[in-house]
Order: sequence, then structure tokens, then C-alpha cells
Amino acid sequence: MAKTMKAAIFVENGRIVLDEKPIPDIAPTDALVRITTTTICGTDVHILKGEYPVANGLTIGHEPVGIIEKLGSGVTGFEEGQRVVVGAITPSGWSNACLCGCGAQDGAGTKHGWKPYGGWKFGNTIDGSQAEYLRVPDAMANLAAIPDQITDEQVLMCPDIMSTGFSGAERGGVQIGDIVAVFAQGPIGLCATAGAKLMGATKIIAVESVPARIEMAKRLGADVVVDFKAEDPVEAIMRITDGRGVDVAIEALGVQSTFEAGLRILRPGGTLSSLGVYSSDLKIPLDAFASGLGDTTIRTTLCPGGKERMRRMLEVVASGRVDLSGLVTHRFKLDQIEDAYDLFANQRDGVLKVAITP
Amino acid sequence: MAKTMKAAIFVENGRIVLDEKPIPDIAPTDALVRITTTTICGTDVHILKGEYPVANGLTIGHEPVGIIEKLGSGVTGFEEGQRVVVGAITPSGWSNACLCGCGAQDGAGTKHGWKPYGGWKFGNTIDGSQAEYLRVPDAMANLAAIPDQITDEQVLMCPDIMSTGFSGAERGGVQIGDIVAVFAQGPIGLCATAGAKLMGATKIIAVESVPARIEMAKRLGADVVVDFKAEDPVEAIMRITDGRGVDVAIEALGVQSTFEAGLRILRPGGTLSSLGVYSSDLKIPLDAFASGLGDTTIRTTLCPGGKERMRRMLEVVASGRVDLSGLVTHRFKLDQIEDAYDLFANQRDGVLKVAITP
Amino acid sequence: MAKTMKAAIFVENGRIVLDEKPIPDIAPTDALVRITTTTICGTDVHILKGEYPVANGLTIGHEPVGIIEKLGSGVTGFEEGQRVVVGAITPSGWSNACLCGCGAQDGAGTKHGWKPYGGWKFGNTIDGSQAEYLRVPDAMANLAAIPDQITDEQVLMCPDIMSTGFSGAERGGVQIGDIVAVFAQGPIGLCATAGAKLMGATKIIAVESVPARIEMAKRLGADVVVDFKAEDPVEAIMRITDGRGVDVAIEALGVQSTFEAGLRILRPGGTLSSLGVYSSDLKIPLDAFASGLGDTTIRTTLCPGGKERMRRMLEVVASGRVDLSGLVTHRFKLDQIEDAYDLFANQRDGVLKVAITP
Amino acid sequence: MAKTMKAAIFVENGRIVLDEKPIPDIAPTDALVRITTTTICGTDVHILKGEYPVANGLTIGHEPVGIIEKLGSGVTGFEEGQRVVVGAITPSGWSNACLCGCGAQDGAGTKHGWKPYGGWKFGNTIDGSQAEYLRVPDAMANLAAIPDQITDEQVLMCPDIMSTGFSGAERGGVQIGDIVAVFAQGPIGLCATAGAKLMGATKIIAVESVPARIEMAKRLGADVVVDFKAEDPVEAIMRITDGRGVDVAIEALGVQSTFEAGLRILRPGGTLSSLGVYSSDLKIPLDAFASGLGDTTIRTTLCPGGKERMRRMLEVVASGRVDLSGLVTHRFKLDQIEDAYDLFANQRDGVLKVAITP
Repeated sequence: MAKTMKAAIFVENGRIVLDEKPIPDIAPTDALVRITTTTICGTDVHILKGEYPVANGLTIGHEPVGIIEKLGSGVTGFEEGQRVVVGAITPSGWSNACLCGCGAQDGAGTKHGWKPYGGWKFGNTIDGSQAEYLRVPDAMANLAAIPDQITDEQVLMCPDIMSTGFSGAERGGVQIGDIVAVFAQGPIGLCATAGAKLMGATKIIAVESVPARIEMAKRLGADVVVDFKAEDPVEAIMRITDGRGVDVAIEALGVQSTFEAGLRILRPGGTLSSLGVYSSDLKIPLDAFASGLGDTTIRTTLCPGGKERMRRMLEVVASGRVDLSGLVTHRFKLDQIEDAYDLFANQRDGVLKVAITP
Repeated sequence: MAKTMKAAIFVENGRIVLDEKPIPDIAPTDALVRITTTTICGTDVHILKGEYPVANGLTIGHEPVGIIEKLGSGVTGFEEGQRVVVGAITPSGWSNACLCGCGAQDGAGTKHGWKPYGGWKFGNTIDGSQAEYLRVPDAMANLAAIPDQITDEQVLMCPDIMSTGFSGAERGGVQIGDIVAVFAQGPIGLCATAGAKLMGATKIIAVESVPARIEMAKRLGADVVVDFKAEDPVEAIMRITDGRGVDVAIEALGVQSTFEAGLRILRPGGTLSSLGVYSSDLKIPLDAFASGLGDTTIRTTLCPGGKERMRRMLEVVASGRVDLSGLVTHRFKLDQIEDAYDLFANQRDGVLKVAITP
Repeated sequence: MAKTMKAAIFVENGRIVLDEKPIPDIAPTDALVRITTTTICGTDVHILKGEYPVANGLTIGHEPVGIIEKLGSGVTGFEEGQRVVVGAITPSGWSNACLCGCGAQDGAGTKHGWKPYGGWKFGNTIDGSQAEYLRVPDAMANLAAIPDQITDEQVLMCPDIMSTGFSGAERGGVQIGDIVAVFAQGPIGLCATAGAKLMGATKIIAVESVPARIEMAKRLGADVVVDFKAEDPVEAIMRITDGRGVDVAIEALGVQSTFEAGLRILRPGGTLSSLGVYSSDLKIPLDAFASGLGDTTIRTTLCPGGKERMRRMLEVVASGRVDLSGLVTHRFKLDQIEDAYDLFANQRDGVLKVAITP
Repeated sequence: MAKTMKAAIFVENGRIVLDEKPIPDIAPTDALVRITTTTICGTDVHILKGEYPVANGLTIGHEPVGIIEKLGSGVTGFEEGQRVVVGAITPSGWSNACLCGCGAQDGAGTKHGWKPYGGWKFGNTIDGSQAEYLRVPDAMANLAAIPDQITDEQVLMCPDIMSTGFSGAERGGVQIGDIVAVFAQGPIGLCATAGAKLMGATKIIAVESVPARIEMAKRLGADVVVDFKAEDPVEAIMRITDGRGVDVAIEALGVQSTFEAGLRILRPGGTLSSLGVYSSDLKIPLDAFASGLGDTTIRTTLCPGGKERMRRMLEVVASGRVDLSGLVTHRFKLDQIEDAYDLFANQRDGVLKVAITP
């Protein structure tokens, strides 16, 4: 086995480049995974642009599909050569946060065991998946075997896109017969739409303006699509719901306008389930908050991870309940990843997600 | 029986006066209650000051204790002469909101059955309890008989103060072993402190600066009190929790500074349970929100009402689990209610709650 | 308007006959509904056989679709001539049980406000829907308007079959990615299957032996069907789940063998959600209960009712998420209801549900 | 350091003896704890009597308090010499069950990651705590540091008695204002009583006949005690609740009579929270189950474990919210453990719990 590998590395604001790096060493509780397919996330673009700071030299990427190359000496229950998917979030399993069922806020190694989005390690605090090899920490909590009949591309949305998108519906508490609005139909928003349908929402209103995304939203469960460039989404949703408002609003963009619109269209007692990564302060308008008397819930959620979560995502794929096959619109070799970033960051050519294969 | 009664009436901003009014007629599903004890709420002071608009001529007050004078022809299960307490919020029982268990957002009579804080009727959309007589709508859902051995004053906190304060802990999801901070120790905040203790919080940090309230907070369950005039409460709470933060923060004032502080001291995955009535837009600082990645929950709650809620509050009083006897600091006859407003609105003489007896 | 009507009346064990009865009077909070379509439930057959006692002379039936003939003087929000569906369970809205969100155990008029399955009134404690006219108590909590584009037959499953069946999945806490087994695929079990799918179960195992029901189960969401006449269902399900067991088992028959099998196939920490009406004591085998150490939940559920529940069921029908059109296999005029009972009670001719039209 | 240690070993039915054993070796993720205080559980007596089978030669005991003697090479966050408590249940943190928040059913090492009460390892599937030294698996998930000011005896109830007892109230969903009955006031039942009080129950009815236990029950929160030798507990509880029944019944004995009585006294929609370890099949009488129509929940719970659970139990002790100091009635050196078993197994001399110190 070679000693070095190719990896997409953050160099400075505006530059992620493919370079050579040593293949990672692994500790007894780790696994080394040879990446077979990975992808680029909107968050990676934030990193590229310098909007989210990471260390210079860090390998980017948190959506790994691959083959176990090597297992740490303490890892049991898996075999080298096994095909696996690993969540974007890799809970240790043993921190206080994890033992509370909140692995995304994993504070492994901190004094009290909680750390804000501490479960997000790949391409954030440790090297990520846009490389030939990936070190997976706490492997026994994080490796999920892929059934043979499922392709890499079919599971490529599991680590982040599906898990995050579905969690928008789950943490919103969607119930049978709910009316749900989903703001923005990028990959995460599309999976929020699919998740709302999967949980029994009977009227799903998607807010989007890009035709390809609108079409995909309809395929995945949107009953109505509001084009926010053609009409005010708050007015449109209140009209569509005949003045009632929605039970659950899911925010999947991360800006003030969608956050605020989500509040404005809630029926009293409703829930705004926020998935977006914000980059500035937010305002809650008094009238959109019923002065604090509306029994409103606002809830943010980071992608749930760990092997049990991945197992469930794989079950969804295997069952055919949700068909995300159209989400991968472009394919690149790892050697071309800089081109892939260029395409994806500029949202050219109707791109939804790219597949990167080393 | 006389045809008129005395009532505290909102006349214009700055003026609530005692005047004569017809004793209310009742419909078949109503009850007429002769008020024996009532009180003034901070919300009534907002009304007085014109910060919360109500119709000119409306009788104010939403915390009734009294005796059933007359029952509507369709009301069964109660008797004239029975001593009762009625919640500040009077759910109809039959609206869609009520049938979802969300009576505070009761939209009885609206198209879809939901209305923002529509369950709050007394002294808001119909005549209230600061009068000799009170019409109680949907009486079968709202009258709660008071056991003989309990005095009027002992139950005077049930309609709003206890029900709201406890709901701060309930909707925060307080669990055994939680660390909870409660911002402001007015009557509602004091009951939030008591509620957090009642649900098993083991470290309760109260934020307050008025000595009498600090003392009462300690009696009701606060383990530590932070005087926000002496030190920054965020710094103090982070020090007290050794940098961990709290599981649940309860906001019981209704201003930006406490709302924001509540967010800043949450551990990842924590809940800000907001009880305050706000009068301006709110800001969520990006860093207090973990950019939307912190699995944070923000939840507002309006006082739960209805006879079953009141029954539970009465059980708490009867059991002696919480002793709120010190909360009534001043007593007035209804004739003196304008003096009572003057004292209470200006927070003079260490007033916590006043008892008004017609 | 005539003074009498035809109604299917329980006379004695083994005899439900069509007879003349006075058209019901209504109280101020009632509505009178002219039945346009109704049906026969398995529970009605229990009544017919004397296995569930009701008063002699009672009109049977609890699944009403019809037109508002007359509204009580106190009923607002509805109009005479409106087409409505009413739940099998008719919560008062104002009892303590209802105010706890537990309308099926409505104890309206009892001392404490709780009564075992007290929400089930039609064809149990008051006259039911197998008649030309039906008195609906607490009309404002129970009438649900039917959108024009939906036919009577499309909503005929809402009052009981859908509401009960879906509740099997809801009270089982089905989550995205769950494995669920449903025992028996009669109308209720079929809707439990549909409900499990609607909530995101990704592997649904239906247990049934009648070919027409097996076929319908597959249409409604069953991924696998176990024919209990061909193999032991416990063995089959453990084989299908590769020894893991299911997250949720739904019992939809009401006998020891399915109750017990449901326990035996649960993974540790799983939930047995029981919908069946039992007619004898049940046994929990020690080994199927992990000696009480398995974090097991057993939960029974009576059909949720009330207009908000019906609204949600109507939304499911209108959305097309679940297509129950094949469930009505036979149609009868009210005049032929004795024949309908004969067919249905003897499960002849592949009957699933009958539609009865006065 | 010596190579051998004293340990209480199961030899055959009826015989647990103190013998010499090698001090355990530890793996990289383990810790070795020098026991300073431990105790005997009712479950250990089941083992002694052969009612619960364990391997010959196994060291018994699952309630460890001690000092870290040695940490595995992969364990961080703790120090040798630190005083710790470890839960009776030691979740791995990484199994599918653990990642679902169900560590008591930890299936670490099994195919699907679930195993009935697989989280209970000490004195069941691996050597336990009635010894001079104890190997703690998955140490980072299971060691909980004890604050200096708390004594060993004060925390001795944390590993099992408090955690299990409190879980009876937690899994019963006790709310503010609930009426709760607790069947049997042994150590677990006493902590269930304390837990119900801690969660806000306002009427707690304890069922017990031993005077010392009755007295302790009253100290810990019982408002009423029913002596089942003096009167039928079902009749008594229905009388005490004026015919209403209880919201939550907690079973803390593990026999048919208390299980059945728990069902009989539930209000409709109530929850039977079962803690007992049963040794025979159970019967659910039809009339105690409302024929399956009562919206009843029956739930069993195994002691929750892991360091975060222990941290919460320590918080309860440190806060003084619950004072369990009277529970240790007798003290023995490890050398005298056979005498301790004799006393405890025969429930002589008013014994509640014994403290064993090596």
C-alpha cells in the first residue's frame, strides 16, 4: 500500500486544492476507509469561501462511501473489505451528550461532555472524505455496512442530505394529516420534503424558484410549489392554507427571510424546524411571534449521525420508499474535484449534487 | 338580586376605573360566578399603560375565585353556591385547537378553529374578573370546585401564576437532575422556580435583584440566586455551572436581555422556555444560536387553562408540595382597586401579588 | 318531515332487525344528521352475537356519513344541508378526559370525568348510525364537513377504520426506518398497515391468510405477508428480520395468539400496539416479556374521534396518500341491512366492508 | 500490587461464598476499580437461590463505589486515584441499542446490536462488584466521578436502587398533579416513591405492610400508605381516590398480585410502570384491561445506566432533594459477606440495604 494519497485540502479562503497527503494512521478504535464515492456539500462551499473557518491544510468533506481498508486493533463486528457508509456526524457514543441521545453535540474529551456541533468532525475538526482514504473515529459506533444490491450513488445522500433533511420533519414533529411548508429545495430541502411525506404530512408546500428543483420537489412529495420570485411566499402559503397556516415549517436555507417567513405562516402552536446554517444574527418580529403567547416552538437540528441512523437511512433507500436517484446530476473523478467545486459553488448547469470517485 | 355591579373598567390609556355595569346575562352553556377574591396581573398593568390594547369599557382581570351564582340551562355537574376557581384561559373544549390539546390557542368560532392566544378571553376579549360578577363561558370545561379546607387566597395563584409558571418548567421538559435557570422572580418566575423544583431539577439558578423576591425564590426552590445588578448573569451562570451551561432556561420577564441571556447559557441541545410577554422584536445573536447547528429549542407558552388544569393546580395546593402563601403581600377591597393598581403598577412596598375582595 | 325512521335495532342476542323508531329529538348542543352512507363494523357483529352487551332496542352503528338535517339552537359554525362525517367516538370536549387529550375515555357526566371507552357512544350507549337519522351529541366538537370532491364511500372508513388503524401506528410510535408487523388484515389491520407506511416504516410485515386481504395488504404498504396457516408467524417474522425482531407490533384481531406473537417478535425496547377488542383474559408468557426487564411497552388504543381527528382523516383521503377505495366490497340499501349483517358476520364472498345507504 | 483478591462467588444454587480470584486484567477501553463500598441487591438473592441462572464461579454484585486503580491505555478523561461510582448497567455506547438511547438493552457484539437486558453485565455476564477489584468495560461511558463532599454510602443507591426506582416514575410519565400508587416499598419501591414525588406527583399511595418500610415511605414522599395485610389494596386505593383511580401505578415487586392490582386501579388512559423482575407468566384479566379499549399503557423498565445517568443521580444526592441516608441499615466487611447474604436474603432485623466494605 502506498504511503500517500490525494486529498482536497483547504489552503486559504477561496482555495480548496487537490494535493498529496500521508494516508492516515489509525488508533485502536478507528477504521481506515478507502473512499469509493463522496460528494460536495453546501457547507464545503461555505468553507471554500471562508464563511466557515477551518484549519489550513484540512481535508474537506463529510459524506463518505467506501470500503474498509483497515480496522483498529480494538474494533470488532466489521471486516476489512466490507463496503460501508459513515455519517457526516460521528458520535463517540461515550460522551455525556451521546448518552443523552444527542450525538450531534458530542463533547467527547471536553469537561462536561457537550460541545456545540461537536459531533461534526469530518472536514471540520479532523480530515474529511474528499480524499482517497479516511480515518473514521469510534468506528464501532459509526460504520454501517451497505447491502450488496445498493449502489454507492444510492447511498451517497445518507451521511448528510437524507439524515439532515428527514430530521427537519422528525424534529418538527410531523403527524399524519399535517400541513407542512419547506423553504428552499436544495438537496437538504428536497429531503425535508421527502421526510415530511414519509411521516404522513398530507399537504406539503415547497418554496423554490429553480425549475429543476421544483420538478424534483414534486417528485419527492410536494403537493404545491410556491415560486418566491413570482409571489410573496407568506401570502401564497396563507392563501393555499385558506388562512389557517401550517402545522410545521421547515427552513432549509439559513437566511433571515426564510426564517421569518417560516414563523409568519405557522398556525398557533406550530413548530418552525430549522435546518439552515446561518451566517448572521436573526430577528424574530414581534407580530410573527404572537408576542410570545403563541405556544410556538423553534427548533434547530444538526444532522443525526452514527451507525444506527445510517442503518435507518439505508433501510429507506433499500425499501424504495424514497427515490433520490435524480439528485446526483454530475459525476467527477477526484482528480477533477477543483472543477467540481467550481461547478457546484456557482450552481451551474442545474447541479443538485455531484458524485466524486477517487 | 341587583341588576348592576361594580367593575374595574379600562377607560383609556392610563385609566382603569371602578364603575357600575350591568350584571352579565348568561347563555345556556355559561355560568355566572360571584367573585369572592381576585387579583391584578402584570398583564393588566400592560393594559393600563396602553401597551396591550383592549376595548374601551372592558372589565379587566383574569384570575377569578368565587361562588357559582347561576348556571346556564345546559350546564350540568355543578351546583349553584359551589365555590370554584376558573383558569385565566378558558378553552371552549370544542375548537380544533382544543381538540389538539392546545386550548390556549382556542379558535372557537373561527374558520379553522385556531386563534393566537384565543383561549385568553377574560379581561381581553370578554369582561373579566375584577368585578362583583363574572360570566364564565363554556362553564362545563372551565369551572373547578375548590375543596372546603382550602382558602380563597391559597388558590388565587392557580388561574394564571401557578399554571403559567409551572408550564415554563413543563414545556422546557425539565427532567430529574437538570440544571435550570429562571430569569426574573416576579410571581410567574417564582412559580417557574417552584415548577422546576417540582419536576426534579436539582440545581435551580434564579436571576433577580429585589431582596424580597430573592428570599422568596430561595424558599420556593432556587439553589443559587444571581443578582444581575451585581454581576453579568451570563458570566455568573457559566461560572456556577462550571462552563457547562443549563439544560433548561426559563424566561419570565419578556425583554431582549433575558431572552438573549437565556440562549447564551444553554448547553448544546438545551431548551429556552419563554413565558414573557414581549413588546418588541427579538434578536437571536448568531453566536448564541450555534449558527443554527446547536439542536436548540425555543418554546413560548401561554398559560394552560380549563378545569382539569385547575384541578391539578388545586392538588398541588392541597398537597402542600408548594407553599405560595407569601405571594399575597397586600389586600384591598374592590372599592380600593384603583389604589391597588397604583401600588402594583409601581411595584411599591415590596408588593408581589395583591388580593382584591369585592 | 316524517316523525319516524327506519333503524337497525338490537333486539336480543343473535337478532339485529330493521324497525321503525321515532326520529330523534335534539338538545341545543346536538345536531340531527340524515344518514346517507354508513357501514357495519366487526364490533357490531360482537353485539349481534351477544358478546358485547348493549341495551335492547338500541340502534346499532357508529360510522356515520350524512347531511346535517337540523342544528341545535346552541350550535354555530355549521349549516343545515352541509355534508358531514362524524367519528365513531364523539368526545364531549369538556370532560377531564377530553381536556387531557383523551377523548376516547370521555367521562362526561361522571364524577371525575373519566370513563373506560366512554367516548364510544353511538350504537353503544346512545342510538347509532344504522338508521335514517342520527342524533350527534356535542355537535360543535364532532361534525366535520366533507369537501365536495370526495364521495361518501371515500370517507366511510374515516369514523372508525382509518382512525383506529392509523392510531395503531401512531401509538406504537412508528419512526422512519422502523420494521413493523401487523397481525390480521381485516379492515382495521389494513389501515394499520397503511398507517405504518404513512409514518415511515420501511419494512412492514403483514400476517394474514385470506388471499383477498393479502392482496389488499400489499397494495396498502405490506412489504412481506406471512400466511399464518402456512407457517408459524413468530418463526417467520424472526427469519424475515434475520433474528432482530420488529420495532413495533400492531395487534388488530383481539385474541391471545396474536397478542402473544406480537410480544414474541419485539426487539428489546419495542412496543406492542394493541387495537383488538379482547373477549377473554390474556396471558403474558414470562419468556416473551424478558422477565419484565426488556423495556417493553404494551399499549391499547381506542379509536380517536372528534372533528379535528376527522379533518385529518379527510386530509389523508383528499391527498390521495392512501387509497382505500377497494375496501368497500359490497353495497346494500338500509332495507337490506339484515342481509348485510348475514354476509358480513359470516365473512362470506370476500367481504371487507359493506356500504349501507338509507 | 497483589495478584489475587477476595470475591463473592456463585458456586451453586444456595451457595455464594467468599473466595480468592485473580485480580482482573483490563483491555485498553476498560478501567480497574478498587471497590470501597458495595451492596447486595434483591436480584443477587434470586441468583443465590438459583432463580436466576448465572455461570458457576461468577463474581456477584452490580452496585460499585470505588477508586480507579488503573485505566486502560485508550481511556482518557479520568485519572487513577479518582473516586467513582459505576451504574449497575454498563452500556457500551456504540451498539445500535445504545445509539437509540436504550443502553439497558445493549447488544454490543450481537448481530443487530440489541440484546434483552444486555446492558446488565456486572454479576450477570461478567464478574461483579462484590470483590476487592472490578473490571469496568467501556470505561469512558461508565465511570462517574464522585464529588468530594459526598460519602460512599450516600452514593451507594445510585447504581441501581435510585436509577431503577426513579425510572419507574419517569417511564410512567408522572406529571405535576398526578396521583401515583407504588406497590411494595422495598429499596426500589421506596425510590419509586421518591421519584414520583421528585416529578411532581401530588398524591402518592404506597402499598406496604412492614412498619419500618411504611415509615421510610412516608419520609420519602408517600402521602398515604395502604397496608395490604389489613385491607384489599385495590379497594383501598379506589376509596382513597374516590373512585377515580390513579394516573400512574408503579409495580416494584414482580408478582401477579401487584401487577394485576396495578392494572385494576388505573384510571382510563393510565400507565402501569413495571419495575419488578417476574418469575412466572402474568395474567391480564379482561376486566382490568377494559377489553383492550382503555388506552392503557403497560411498560417495563430496566435500570438506566451509563455515566450521564450516574451524574444525574449524584446531582440528586448532592442537592439534598432526596435523603436516602436511612436506607443502609446494616454494615459488613467483605469478609463477612456470607453473613450479610444470610441477613439480607431472610430479610431479618428490618434490613433495607447493607453496605459492604472490602
